[in-house]
Amino acid sequence: MDSLLASLREIGREIRETLLRVIGDPDMSAITGMGADGTYTHRIDRVCEDIIIRNVKDLDLPVNVVSEEAGIVDRGYDQNLVTDPLDGTFNAEHRIPFFASSMAVMGSDTDSLRLGYVINLGNGDEYWTERGGGVFFNGNRVTRKRRANVVSFNIGDGVEEYIGRLLSLRGKKRALGCASLELCLVATGSLDMMAYLGNGNRIRNVDVAAGVLAVRESGGAVVDERGAEFRAGLDVSKRMNIVAVSDRNFLVDIL
Amino acid sequence: MDSLLASLREIGREIRETLLRVIGDPDMSAITGMGADGTYTHRIDRVCEDIIIRNVKDLDLPVNVVSEEAGIVDRGYDQNLVTDPLDGTFNAEHRIPFFASSMAVMGSDTDSLRLGYVINLGNGDEYWTERGGGVFFNGNRVTRKRRANVVSFNIGDGVEEYIGRLLSLRGKKRALGCASLELCLVATGSLDMMAYLGNGNRIRNVDVAAGVLAVRESGGAVVDERGAEFRAGLDVSKRMNIVAVSDRNFLVDIL
Repeated sequence: MDSLLASLREIGREIRETLLRVIGDPDMSAITGMGADGTYTHRIDRVCEDIIIRNVKDLDLPVNVVSEEAGIVDRGYDQNLVTDPLDGTFNAEHRIPFFASSMAVMGSDTDSLRLGYVINLGNGDEYWTERGGGVFFNGNRVTRKRRANVVSFNIGDGVEEYIGRLLSLRGKKRALGCASLELCLVATGSLDMMAYLGNGNRIRNVDVAAGVLAVRESGGAVVDERGAEFRAGLDVSKRMNIVAVSDRNFLVDIL
Repeated sequence: MDSLLASLREIGREIRETLLRVIGDPDMSAITGMGADGTYTHRIDRVCEDIIIRNVKDLDLPVNVVSEEAGIVDRGYDQNLVTDPLDGTFNAEHRIPFFASSMAVMGSDTDSLRLGYVINLGNGDEYWTERGGGVFFNGNRVTRKRRANVVSFNIGDGVEEYIGRLLSLRGKKRALGCASLELCLVATGSLDMMAYLGNGNRIRNVDVAAGVLAVRESGGAVVDERGAEFRAGLDVSKRMNIVAVSDRNFLVDIL
């Protein structure tokens, strides 16, 4: 295993331990400022981000940090740790047990992704992927994917044209509200599709970078709302639509 | 605490320990027969149900058992343990971490509910309620409810008239796929509303009995698709629509 991946796993488990201790504390939902991504920072986000930044420095990992709240912490490297320390803050604060920490290593955009790591902070499930090395779930390589007959879509305003198609898709419908984890479920074949479409439900690079690599490494596809290959850079304030499928053939049903 | 509740908690924790050991084993998704409710029984459902029936007999609990797979196990009592040992089987099998065990004690219908217990089998969160005694989350009485600005709705075919209203509701939208747990999230104020509307997404008494008492004890309301008070008897094959809200005023937005 890549030693950087081993470090990310240690960091992920420290975030989980800390979060399980403080979750439900109403002080953790207090808004402490405005993040670099243009959304409010809750104390709970900041606690998780601090763990990442401290560890990157203490372990002297060869990466800059690109994060939801802090923006870019430039440490003079070519590689960037693009991370949402707590993806699904709303779920976490509302006791909806579907939230994660997402960490990806890439150059200047998602075309150069080399490593992705996501930990489900509720149950501790871990997903990781290295470019050219496939996808691992709790340490086991994911090999078999069959149609799951379930999709997860999160839709905002202005996408009335998609709603009928999405609702008519075969299988069960979910809307889970944590993009990093939904992408990992697509990569492992637990979901056939995940989508964030329309306004008010757009995602950022930090939410999805790790999962994008996982889906692509698993043989699936990730596109934008027009069906073009999904691509994101280092700007944490940019919001995008995304559709990921475990099999490219499923795209024809949607877009 | 009611000694029956203490027994249900013991049973719930045994189900969780067993399930965490076997989940992900592909043999557990094998279909072993047809349940009393008219759906296929997966081995994983049967494993959980066996734990309940064995414990009810061993502990000599003063209840009959009404369960998804077995139907009615008549032990000659007036009170019935109405239970879905594994609610959200599909989620559990697909590694969507939102599934629960639901147990309720009632006479011949939900109007006579006296006790409800739900355990989130993923993270171990416990919800319980006794008639007239309020709602407890992980041992703490739930006192404060504010608007959560998130709803969970699961919709099947034939409810086109609801879709626009549901999508236009204020706040975030989820579709979580485990009715017992969604009802508990309404009861604790984590969700403003949960709904199962239309065909192909109807619920059964065993899924919702415990949560119905929790929502009502919390000051919320539970109705059918026409807005009439929700009521279910002992027939596990009967499928119904359901809408639950943490505040009755929210109903006007939906029905």
